[in-house]
Amino acid sequence: MNSGSLSTLFSPRTIALVGASRKPGRIGYEILRNLRADFRGKVYPINPGVEEVQGLRAYKSISEVPEPLDLVVFAVTPRDTLKAFMIAVEKRVGAAIIVSGGFKELGGEGEEIEGKIRRIARESGVRVIGPNCIGVLVPRHGVDTFFQSRGRMDRPRHGQLAILSQSGTYAATMTEWAVRSHIGVSKVVSYGNRVDVDEADLIEFLADDPDTAVIALYVEGVEEGRKLYEEVKKTSFKKPVIVYKGGKSGGAETAILHTGWLAGDYPVFHFAMRQAGAIEVENTYGLIDAAKALIMIGPIERGGVVSVTNGAGPVVVGYDLLERYGLHTSTLSEQTTAFLKEMLPSYCQVSNPVDLTGSADSGFFDTALGALTEDINIDLIFAFLVLQDTPLDEG
Amino acid sequence: MNSGSLSTLFSPRTIALVGASRKPGRIGYEILRNLRADFRGKVYPINPGVEEVQGLRAYKSISEVPEPLDLVVFAVTPRDTLKAFMIAVEKRVGAAIIVSGGFKELGGEGEEIEGKIRRIARESGVRVIGPNCIGVLVPRHGVDTFFQSRGRMDRPRHGQLAILSQSGTYAATMTEWAVRSHIGVSKVVSYGNRVDVDEADLIEFLADDPDTAVIALYVEGVEEGRKLYEEVKKTSFKKPVIVYKGGKSGGAETAILHTGWLAGDYPVFHFAMRQAGAIEVENTYGLIDAAKALIMIGPIERGGVVSVTNGAGPVVVGYDLLERYGLHTSTLSEQTTAFLKEMLPSYCQVSNPVDLTGSADSGFFDTALGALTEDINIDLIFAFLVLQDTPLDEG
Repeated sequence: MNSGSLSTLFSPRTIALVGASRKPGRIGYEILRNLRADFRGKVYPINPGVEEVQGLRAYKSISEVPEPLDLVVFAVTPRDTLKAFMIAVEKRVGAAIIVSGGFKELGGEGEEIEGKIRRIARESGVRVIGPNCIGVLVPRHGVDTFFQSRGRMDRPRHGQLAILSQSGTYAATMTEWAVRSHIGVSKVVSYGNRVDVDEADLIEFLADDPDTAVIALYVEGVEEGRKLYEEVKKTSFKKPVIVYKGGKSGGAETAILHTGWLAGDYPVFHFAMRQAGAIEVENTYGLIDAAKALIMIGPIERGGVVSVTNGAGPVVVGYDLLERYGLHTSTLSEQTTAFLKEMLPSYCQVSNPVDLTGSADSGFFDTALGALTEDINIDLIFAFLVLQDTPLDEG
Repeated sequence: MNSGSLSTLFSPRTIALVGASRKPGRIGYEILRNLRADFRGKVYPINPGVEEVQGLRAYKSISEVPEPLDLVVFAVTPRDTLKAFMIAVEKRVGAAIIVSGGFKELGGEGEEIEGKIRRIARESGVRVIGPNCIGVLVPRHGVDTFFQSRGRMDRPRHGQLAILSQSGTYAATMTEWAVRSHIGVSKVVSYGNRVDVDEADLIEFLADDPDTAVIALYVEGVEEGRKLYEEVKKTSFKKPVIVYKGGKSGGAETAILHTGWLAGDYPVFHFAMRQAGAIEVENTYGLIDAAKALIMIGPIERGGVVSVTNGAGPVVVGYDLLERYGLHTSTLSEQTTAFLKEMLPSYCQVSNPVDLTGSADSGFFDTALGALTEDINIDLIFAFLVLQDTPLDEG
């Protein structure tokens, strides 16, 4: 599939919202507010029942909009979505985002309608995100189809992290974690039931996106495992792909219900991702923590870790995880060892970790960090500070 | 070993501090401040060089203290600790806590001295906590041998959780997490190098401690595995024992250095703990999270879980963990299903989870939680609220 056509999705000049609403609290109201907040292009509210919405002229149908539409966002029932989508295809719009739920995940008519939308999308080449998602956030271009109000959910600044999530909740949550971790974001895509565009398509696009340096993916079920494997494999040579898989075991049934797809056999997924060069993390926080490390420090060549601390317990726990991520402990050079034994009190432990003990003040850390930074055996210093201990000299 | 004698450790009437200091920032100063903060018994500073410390008369030696000592805390070098400990044994003190480091974990003379202290402790029957630890905190009796100042580290209120930790850093950290989780604490014991009292002795004591309802243990290496297994097995019939093991793999070398003991073969530990009925958690936060759940909800008989949410992603991730902890998903009764399908909008998913979707307001939750609470198939309701979504009606 030609992922090049995804570019209109991320930098549209015109956007229409089907289901734009005048009532605060309605999804069609909240999305319109967010769409208009930072976007410099034109926004067209579509609502057959009213003349204007939020001070903008409302159009009865997509077909009435007087100029080409790069992006159409749908926030209406499945039946109304199908009708409007057919008109959108007729009008040759650039891309579509179906925010509404009630499709495959509910079975019955919703599932049938989703099947029809898929066929129309495939035949027409109009790329579709969703349904059952919160859509797309592109800080650089002011694109924001989320329905969470800005009072309730912080938006990130432009930056190097792309966040992809099957779950809208995790898309929103990871976005807020990025804000709190002071990481800028290139794109957030919540892709939900992926009637058309899936995680592999998005990764393929982001592989060559100059705005994106690191990709973080939350995925529950995988429909086309081979395709995902291939795209991750190609991409991980260019930039890190961090993955968390929900629906590993007991959650499988839930994941089917959630976005209509089977979670699949986790061990197969796990080994495929390792083989493909992805960084698989142990929990959802890890997606943002790993992204932050990769953006701020960058990948590490050899992976030799030395720790310096005033409380060794957390280092023990941290070292348990090294092997899992392809890192290993390093040894201090003879010079570093001799220097630190000379400079630090005898009760300090000059090994790995360098345990400065609960008596450490900032001078101890200064001495240790200075020496470790000079030691070419060491690729990464893991400094763990216990702030509850006796006050550090602030000098 | 007679763990009954540990009771003087937790409710002493008199405490001496060897190494009491007049200099703020010194460990012997900070401990004295904390020892005096809430303790109603008598505190004796021991320091041969001064007449008074913090307004209290200082004694040159333990032998000069005019009354029996229930507890002696040591905050001096290994050599001075050994000398003073011999005098303490002579005086037949109740128990000892050696806070100082520089013993087995450094090897050489420190290790030799630790061996001597062990022999003297075993021969005399004086129970010893430490060395290389932060000691004991008993909110109920105002006992606080920690050196972290109260400005830097919050103290918990009296309550039902006992925290045991080989690592002083985790003892302090878990204590603060308990404060932030609004859980009261019966005892905190940081036992460090466990020259005498080990985790099994402490668990044996806490099994019959009426103040303690739940025990949380952070352990790195185990010296006497069989003894720990036996005590956990006996205790877990009476109250939950939650365990986190640090030093599982790559951290092993660190753990040896940290408290002088080999971390051991993790799979053996894992199966022994499962066999013994312990609840093993996946990370250190889990110690306090599990404790909070057990204290506030209590153990669950059958373990059937149903979730209600306005964002299903986190439920998928949560359900992945059910099996690991002996829980399972439950099915809604026919009545509950029929009732909720009637009462909730058709786009809500009435299954497990009950997915109220991003359109949910507080009325949806009210309806769902009310019905689930009545359903006898359900033992535990896992309610996950996404607060970023459209404002909940506050009514």
